Amino acid sequence: MDITTIIGVVLGLILVGWGIVSNSDLGSFSDPPSFVIVIGGTLSGYMVAFPMKDVLNVGKVFSKTLKNSEFDVDQIITKIIELANVARREGLLALEEAVSEIKDDFLQKGVMLIVDGTDPELVKNIMETEIENLADRHAKNRSMLEMMGSLCPAFGMVGTLIGLVAMLQNLSDPSAIGPAMAVALLTTFYGSLFANLVFIPMASKLALKSNEEMLIRNVMIEGLLSIQAGENPRIIEEKLKVFLPPSVRKTVGTQEAKSDNG
Amino acid sequence: MDITTIIGVVLGLILVGWGIVSNSDLGSFSDPPSFVIVIGGTLSGYMVAFPMKDVLNVGKVFSKTLKNSEFDVDQIITKIIELANVARREGLLALEEAVSEIKDDFLQKGVMLIVDGTDPELVKNIMETEIENLADRHAKNRSMLEMMGSLCPAFGMVGTLIGLVAMLQNLSDPSAIGPAMAVALLTTFYGSLFANLVFIPMASKLALKSNEEMLIRNVMIEGLLSIQAGENPRIIEEKLKVFLPPSVRKTVGTQEAKSDNG
Amino acid sequence: MDITTIIGVVLGLILVGWGIVSNSDLGSFSDPPSFVIVIGGTLSGYMVAFPMKDVLNVGKVFSKTLKNSEFDVDQIITKIIELANVARREGLLALEEAVSEIKDDFLQKGVMLIVDGTDPELVKNIMETEIENLADRHAKNRSMLEMMGSLCPAFGMVGTLIGLVAMLQNLSDPSAIGPAMAVALLTTFYGSLFANLVFIPMASKLALKSNEEMLIRNVMIEGLLSIQAGENPRIIEEKLKVFLPPSVRKTVGTQEAKSDNG
Amino acid sequence: MDITTIIGVVLGLILVGWGIVSNSDLGSFSDPPSFVIVIGGTLSGYMVAFPMKDVLNVGKVFSKTLKNSEFDVDQIITKIIELANVARREGLLALEEAVSEIKDDFLQKGVMLIVDGTDPELVKNIMETEIENLADRHAKNRSMLEMMGSLCPAFGMVGTLIGLVAMLQNLSDPSAIGPAMAVALLTTFYGSLFANLVFIPMASKLALKSNEEMLIRNVMIEGLLSIQAGENPRIIEEKLKVFLPPSVRKTVGTQEAKSDNG
Amino acid sequence: MDITTIIGVVLGLILVGWGIVSNSDLGSFSDPPSFVIVIGGTLSGYMVAFPMKDVLNVGKVFSKTLKNSEFDVDQIITKIIELANVARREGLLALEEAVSEIKDDFLQKGVMLIVDGTDPELVKNIMETEIENLADRHAKNRSMLEMMGSLCPAFGMVGTLIGLVAMLQNLSDPSAIGPAMAVALLTTFYGSLFANLVFIPMASKLALKSNEEMLIRNVMIEGLLSIQAGENPRIIEEKLKVFLPPSVRKTVGTQEAKSDNG
Repeated sequence: MDITTIIGVVLGLILVGWGIVSNSDLGSFSDPPSFVIVIGGTLSGYMVAFPMKDVLNVGKVFSKTLKNSEFDVDQIITKIIELANVARREGLLALEEAVSEIKDDFLQKGVMLIVDGTDPELVKNIMETEIENLADRHAKNRSMLEMMGSLCPAFGMVGTLIGLVAMLQNLSDPSAIGPAMAVALLTTFYGSLFANLVFIPMASKLALKSNEEMLIRNVMIEGLLSIQAGENPRIIEEKLKVFLPPSVRKTVGTQEAKSDNG
Repeated sequence: MDITTIIGVVLGLILVGWGIVSNSDLGSFSDPPSFVIVIGGTLSGYMVAFPMKDVLNVGKVFSKTLKNSEFDVDQIITKIIELANVARREGLLALEEAVSEIKDDFLQKGVMLIVDGTDPELVKNIMETEIENLADRHAKNRSMLEMMGSLCPAFGMVGTLIGLVAMLQNLSDPSAIGPAMAVALLTTFYGSLFANLVFIPMASKLALKSNEEMLIRNVMIEGLLSIQAGENPRIIEEKLKVFLPPSVRKTVGTQEAKSDNG
Repeated sequence: MDITTIIGVVLGLILVGWGIVSNSDLGSFSDPPSFVIVIGGTLSGYMVAFPMKDVLNVGKVFSKTLKNSEFDVDQIITKIIELANVARREGLLALEEAVSEIKDDFLQKGVMLIVDGTDPELVKNIMETEIENLADRHAKNRSMLEMMGSLCPAFGMVGTLIGLVAMLQNLSDPSAIGPAMAVALLTTFYGSLFANLVFIPMASKLALKSNEEMLIRNVMIEGLLSIQAGENPRIIEEKLKVFLPPSVRKTVGTQEAKSDNG
Repeated sequence: MDITTIIGVVLGLILVGWGIVSNSDLGSFSDPPSFVIVIGGTLSGYMVAFPMKDVLNVGKVFSKTLKNSEFDVDQIITKIIELANVARREGLLALEEAVSEIKDDFLQKGVMLIVDGTDPELVKNIMETEIENLADRHAKNRSMLEMMGSLCPAFGMVGTLIGLVAMLQNLSDPSAIGPAMAVALLTTFYGSLFANLVFIPMASKLALKSNEEMLIRNVMIEGLLSIQAGENPRIIEEKLKVFLPPSVRKTVGTQEAKSDNG
Repeated sequence: MDITTIIGVVLGLILVGWGIVSNSDLGSFSDPPSFVIVIGGTLSGYMVAFPMKDVLNVGKVFSKTLKNSEFDVDQIITKIIELANVARREGLLALEEAVSEIKDDFLQKGVMLIVDGTDPELVKNIMETEIENLADRHAKNRSMLEMMGSLCPAFGMVGTLIGLVAMLQNLSDPSAIGPAMAVALLTTFYGSLFANLVFIPMASKLALKSNEEMLIRNVMIEGLLSIQAGENPRIIEEKLKVFLPPSVRKTVGTQEAKSDNG
């Protein structure tokens, strides 16, 4: 679970709530109709922008910002070097036994292709098309949250305009002007808050998770092609560690040694 | 019919209408002159921005956001694998009979090129130029809606400035100030609403539909070139399924098996 | 003449004029000093942004948005296929006679290069450099209008700030506040109107015209290289028609048949 | 000297000054503290954004917008064709004498490399790396002005907020409200004016000058490589003239003929 | 230490402080709750946007804007030419002794790869993957500061809306309106100031430092591959000096001569 997503949203709401309480009371900032216009308007625009199957997917996209990355690069590299050692000693066919132990579908598929004796060019082609299409699907998820992040303040403003126009048409009771305008501003407040605390940062988190996954997929492709080419496990390690930030490279070396001995 | 486009617009209008009714009445928010300035101004700017033939095309562009994608990727892949099986068993010329059954013009044309014994490099060249030009036409359609989405709030603001200036020039009757300003704000309200409920999300929907069609066109090119190269239908299936999200790959496998047996 | 550019601007001005008249009178919206600040400021910034020779070119750039595209793709494709037929039957040298009939300089030059027996690689290199540089010049023209479209509202705001500051410094006569503020807002009104009715849409129109010309130039290069390579006119036709939207392809076929018989 | 940069700034200031004088007097628009906050704040942000050596370079960057392009494309092309003629008639070594007459460092260096018998691939590599790095340095200069153009209105707004907050905290004297707010708006006025009259257009001018220089550098590389390859001067001329706009090509032809005879 | 980052921030704060003091007093501009909402809200959104390990990294990212570039291009080029001379005279293996003297990890690693007799293609591959991944990590650091620079004014506006709504709901005491609105504006003031004095310029500084490091890494790769290919040190010098701005090239020449003789 990517705990920071939840901590961030909760912390932000607490801070804003505290800011409200120290100026006024929470009750005066809660206006369900304003809330309905902002969220309802955002969802309406979102439905115009995305086809039915993506509209139904919206829950899944949100849940993705909460899931922790399932990847541990160190472990993946260690695993690939292990596979390289097996392939070196016992031949590519010996990898078949190892396949069932691989938890990642993408890596498993790659190893299967190698075991099947698929042409290296085709392996590369298949694996790269796979991650290109994955990147496209990630980009679409991100664009859903970005669209919401841009519609949300827009419908906040639409709501405020409704309130202002209604107020301006009836200025007979001066004492009602202030509260009416306060309510009118609430939609802008909701729109700004949801966009900047939820939609925009979440879109950014999805982008990061996508980049990270792409990096790991590239490590896997690089590793698999090297294994298929029968390269020296030591050189493969050298090539894959380049994908890591320098600070964690040492650790991987140690782990590799351990698993290599094991 | 892409029902979400209509549901979204209708739902958005209902919500905004409800928001208006709960603050004021619908009548006070209907100001035909404001409406004419926003929509008329947007269309004027649109005419400056696009040549005659695209101006006349505007209806077609809108209708595209309402049409459902005619593509069923599963079915297309199944069809291509069928064709691959035919070509394998009976030779490329045997595909001629299958041509008439293909509903998609692009795929049909590709098969025709193969049957005619066109050079593979030329087939690839023709099919890729075709989708590049298709992508350009899609991008132009999208840019029409985006231009409207940007002109609409701009002319909303122009209308509001007209109202404000007119009001400020004649402040003698204080009781008229409020209503005059309310009317002035209506153009901004219309401009914001149309842009964020209609034009901007519709441009986004066209972009999605375009991406989806490009993906399918690429599947077709990949499949056709593989058939022409005489590749194994099983490998072709493997290559094409990579274009699908992992969750639906199983289904295609089943369908393929069925149609393969059929 | 690209009549929509003019219709759009005139229609926009009429609509805005009507909007003014129905709220106030045209006279109160005409403030020559405001006009001078907006247009003069825009031109000043434009002079800082572009070198002398481009500053003098500004009229030409505007006139380009009024010129109709001189290209009729159907006709160009028909012409190229004609040339291909001639080259096939009578050899590349026979194209020399046809050169004088070609109205387009770019196509004419390409045919000359072929007749001169220039190396195909060099023909391609020269023609592609030509359109790259053309695209650069188009992009510069576009950037002139875009710069004006961004400076215009900015100087509108500068003018409004001048008016507001002047008004705020002298609040002694309350009855003068309204009219003073009205005048202050006029620069913002002018800036918004010119940017959104003239500069921004015109920049967009230039972009479209440029894209269209690029497409046709690419058709020409593709056609010329195919002629030089001695390809079958039927295949050339197939290759070039791919650049057209599907709906107009049939028409070209007919024309081609006609001219082919003629 | 690129006179339009200065004319533009001066003209813009005169227009704005005239706008001020016709509403109020210049004295009321001059507020040194506001000026210090806008320019000082912009420079502070600029120092955070750029390292010491670029901060000290700021004068040089401004002066670049005032320098006229030292390039005359016609002349450069004529020179290259001259060199090509020399190389053709007397061999590449004969270019050594011509080197001293070449004023442009880049072209001189290229000719030296050719005379030294450097491998064509290496000549291309060195010259292209040179212009890539030049483009990077130009982009950095441009980004300095763009950063200022974005910080300037931002600090204008910061200054206005300071003035507004100070005014709102002390509303006891109603007659002071107007003038206080006028002064508060002056920082926004300064920020807008400097950004749109100076920084943003100047960044655009640098971009144009950079593009122009890149074009000429590419002409030089194309020409030098053709000379080294021993191509026919007539073909070289054909290739280089493609970089010019069609309207000026004739002139170069004439000049070339002249210098060719001379 | 990159002293300009600190000087800029301090200078900016002094200027703004002076601007406040000359209008009001510092005390009235200090509102801890406003500060907490702006910074707390920014951090909350930042936590939603970035995973835990990057949230904890935020201090490191800031400290990077304070560190001076550790690279002296002149020295690096001089060092590489030295290495090239050694390799030329005594063979690639003789570089092993020089390795320990190299302070930069990247260069050291490259020399090690050469000494180990790694295939040139692989050396290039490893070194280029290394800098691509480095560029990705830099881009992520930059995006952290950019996200803060965009969240900061957004939460400033959220805070101002809270204050405005609270004020409008209770207009009974007219004398409280001014001060309440002043406090409401403080969050916008804080948000604007921090974004434009700290986050946005710092993101720009990181971008510059990254570009500079990339340039030097490319110099190193170019140099190492040339050494491995056994190129003439004089040609290597020529190739590497191209990466420097022309003005400093002479100096490097001199230094090189010195160290060459030394």
